[in-house]
Amino acid sequence: MATKSDKAVKISQKHLLGIQDLSVSDINCILSEAKQFISLNKSKNKKLETLRGKTQINLFFEPSTRTQSSFELAGKRLGADVMSMNIVNSAIKKGETLIDTAMTLNAMHPDLIVIRHQDSGACNLLSQKVNCTVINAGDGRREHPTQALLDALTIIEKKGKVQGLRIAICGDILHSRVARSNIYLLNMLGAEVNIIAPTNLMPKDLDKFGVNKFSNMKEGLKDCDIVMMLRIQKERIIGKIMPNEKLYYNKFGLNYKKLAYAKKNALVMHPGPMNRGVEIDSELADDITRSLIQEQVSMGVAIRMSCLEILINNKDLYGS
Amino acid sequence: MATKSDKAVKISQKHLLGIQDLSVSDINCILSEAKQFISLNKSKNKKLETLRGKTQINLFFEPSTRTQSSFELAGKRLGADVMSMNIVNSAIKKGETLIDTAMTLNAMHPDLIVIRHQDSGACNLLSQKVNCTVINAGDGRREHPTQALLDALTIIEKKGKVQGLRIAICGDILHSRVARSNIYLLNMLGAEVNIIAPTNLMPKDLDKFGVNKFSNMKEGLKDCDIVMMLRIQKERIIGKIMPNEKLYYNKFGLNYKKLAYAKKNALVMHPGPMNRGVEIDSELADDITRSLIQEQVSMGVAIRMSCLEILINNKDLYGS
Amino acid sequence: MATKSDKAVKISQKHLLGIQDLSVSDINCILSEAKQFISLNKSKNKKLETLRGKTQINLFFEPSTRTQSSFELAGKRLGADVMSMNIVNSAIKKGETLIDTAMTLNAMHPDLIVIRHQDSGACNLLSQKVNCTVINAGDGRREHPTQALLDALTIIEKKGKVQGLRIAICGDILHSRVARSNIYLLNMLGAEVNIIAPTNLMPKDLDKFGVNKFSNMKEGLKDCDIVMMLRIQKERIIGKIMPNEKLYYNKFGLNYKKLAYAKKNALVMHPGPMNRGVEIDSELADDITRSLIQEQVSMGVAIRMSCLEILINNKDLYGS
Repeated sequence: MATKSDKAVKISQKHLLGIQDLSVSDINCILSEAKQFISLNKSKNKKLETLRGKTQINLFFEPSTRTQSSFELAGKRLGADVMSMNIVNSAIKKGETLIDTAMTLNAMHPDLIVIRHQDSGACNLLSQKVNCTVINAGDGRREHPTQALLDALTIIEKKGKVQGLRIAICGDILHSRVARSNIYLLNMLGAEVNIIAPTNLMPKDLDKFGVNKFSNMKEGLKDCDIVMMLRIQKERIIGKIMPNEKLYYNKFGLNYKKLAYAKKNALVMHPGPMNRGVEIDSELADDITRSLIQEQVSMGVAIRMSCLEILINNKDLYGS
Repeated sequence: MATKSDKAVKISQKHLLGIQDLSVSDINCILSEAKQFISLNKSKNKKLETLRGKTQINLFFEPSTRTQSSFELAGKRLGADVMSMNIVNSAIKKGETLIDTAMTLNAMHPDLIVIRHQDSGACNLLSQKVNCTVINAGDGRREHPTQALLDALTIIEKKGKVQGLRIAICGDILHSRVARSNIYLLNMLGAEVNIIAPTNLMPKDLDKFGVNKFSNMKEGLKDCDIVMMLRIQKERIIGKIMPNEKLYYNKFGLNYKKLAYAKKNALVMHPGPMNRGVEIDSELADDITRSLIQEQVSMGVAIRMSCLEILINNKDLYGS
Repeated sequence: MATKSDKAVKISQKHLLGIQDLSVSDINCILSEAKQFISLNKSKNKKLETLRGKTQINLFFEPSTRTQSSFELAGKRLGADVMSMNIVNSAIKKGETLIDTAMTLNAMHPDLIVIRHQDSGACNLLSQKVNCTVINAGDGRREHPTQALLDALTIIEKKGKVQGLRIAICGDILHSRVARSNIYLLNMLGAEVNIIAPTNLMPKDLDKFGVNKFSNMKEGLKDCDIVMMLRIQKERIIGKIMPNEKLYYNKFGLNYKKLAYAKKNALVMHPGPMNRGVEIDSELADDITRSLIQEQVSMGVAIRMSCLEILINNKDLYGS
């Protein structure tokens, strides 16, 4: 069993609220620290003592399987006491606000709260009210920083780097916190980012981020090394932006034929959960020679272990 | 990391079902033992081995954020294996009774079951059917003993004692297990208790407890050291006892102006979750120079650690 | 505290999907290994380090109190990191399939997934898609192998053996995975099995298993050592197979009078949760001189500890 490392890995932030708050050095530090956890997670003994005596609370106001599980396992494998709360049946029923719930939990002296909330900026508000460290696990349409970090780690594991790659992000960009965090991060790490979306789902403020905008896949995928597909929420699109799922798939779904517009060895990503046959062809999604979707999930646990370790150690170094 | 203490702290009861079952010595023992956990919970390493090898089950038939979280963290920090069950979607759907559920869990050899249930006396019934120790985390309108204990600990931390203080409890006394447990405990510890409630929400059997009864706040708050506000369940009050929330707030809500009727340095408590602007002015609730609301939550974890430790050790000493 | 044993207990299977896949030697191995856990679970320190560093995920698509709790406590007492997921509010809402959910969890590198699912064969499908070990905690009408194993362990603890006993299984055999797993296992261990069911609830393919079929309890219970009652799902029976609960109870419910048809010291079992007064007389169910119902729950934790330990060690021995 490995023991707690003595080296103090530091980043500039107390909280992880968004990629926009991080420096390139912070990002590289998180990515680098995550690498040791990739092999740990594949080993027979996946348990460390690094965060023994620490308390991590997962506070999820939106249902989630993968992100919540990923944070829960990450914390447990590092030896923390982890408490996961799905705020659906509990305090909210009694009319308590996000802030009251968070301040109540804060008074129990957790070291860290992981929060997912439907409102953009909820985690920033929270971080101003509590003493503990806050990690944003997705807030409204704003940011989902650990998703972008795990995507970068996945790319680096497969392509060796992000710098200089051409990466397409395709789908409902407007409502996607995954897209937003990835655009920030990929830009910072020196990728060329192509955004592909139906006109109505293309944010107006994208120009300042130096991305290339496309409304059809043939052009947008040209010369791409990586194609990131986004999950669509059908109720936002079907019957509104597009008359039916089939038409969406025809125009913006990824299959082998469209993937051929990209580079020969281009790889496919999706943050999950997938709408098979809507955003992505089911066979392609399962093709482990082209699809990194399962790999992303694996990298997710490693990235969250890295974030938990670095942020909780940071807090101990600098005080709360 | 601290290790398990050798001293055997004992109380007279196998279970913690209500304040009414405890002696003054029991209460002082629980309060005294809790103090070490206050500092532990603020330290960098919050983990003990005291209850390693013990199994704690939280069995909640009513939704709860703070009480369930508090017991879960308390058990985990003491090293117990903690399993939390919200009986909303599971056995109850299949028509299993409380007793069958409890006996089933009992057969898994937990050391302790923490139970919250909507029926007054459910925990007493349960305690007669199982071998393990039972802690009442709130049963109907009857008792919520750990809330009263944490309130007492909060008062002692701030005022040095309970003895001789004048303490007002204000709101829907009739339906409040928090009020009932606090009345018992504060009386036993020698406080003077003022009860303030709308006439319809004042229990008829209060006289035997030696409390002072008031139907308006100006009189009831006079010379008070502590003002405990109760949460109201709006559906019981608004449109029935009171035509609207504003009127309730005007007559029985606490704000700075009404707090001025109490002693100059009087402090405010609320068991949470709050209805801001109904029982209590929002600004006052957040004013840490006057409000102990967050402090109560902190003390809650310490009190529950004390109760878990004492009761589980008692069980080991005396057998089940 | 006991430490991890060096001996490698092996069974022929990587997964535990059904009794049908096991050899008699496998079954005896699981039963034998379970015995040490019976006493451990009654001791003061119920915690081992056997599965420290291992990750167990409980993935329940049907609500369950006893089975899920049993697996959760079993894993925790063996030192594993346990994550329990009730897939009611989460990914399924987003339309993710069983397989996508399972593959996502698999990518987080658990050592073992415990799954309950409403579809017969769901666990087999799952086991083909993931790298980790799979335990079936009940799939549709097909199998519930750990229930049959715990029932056998209960019988052996009370009667010393299964071989040569006459055992009745009574109720809705057609829809019962408990019945099916028990028929396979009891046959393999050399019991004589009597099946008692209303004609409409008697499976047509039973003959090949060498059981005796009865449609009334008087004949079916004759000379029996053990009477296993099954839970009925009322919505399947009442108003369809039987006009009302009372008539079902009169014909197929167990009470002292009917139990007298069996051997003098015959013992009663039920997998729970019970419909008291429908399948079984309430007083008889609680009569610990005749009813093994609580004992079954106790044996359940021991059996699951045995299965978890053996299967996870198997995986380490043979690789994934």
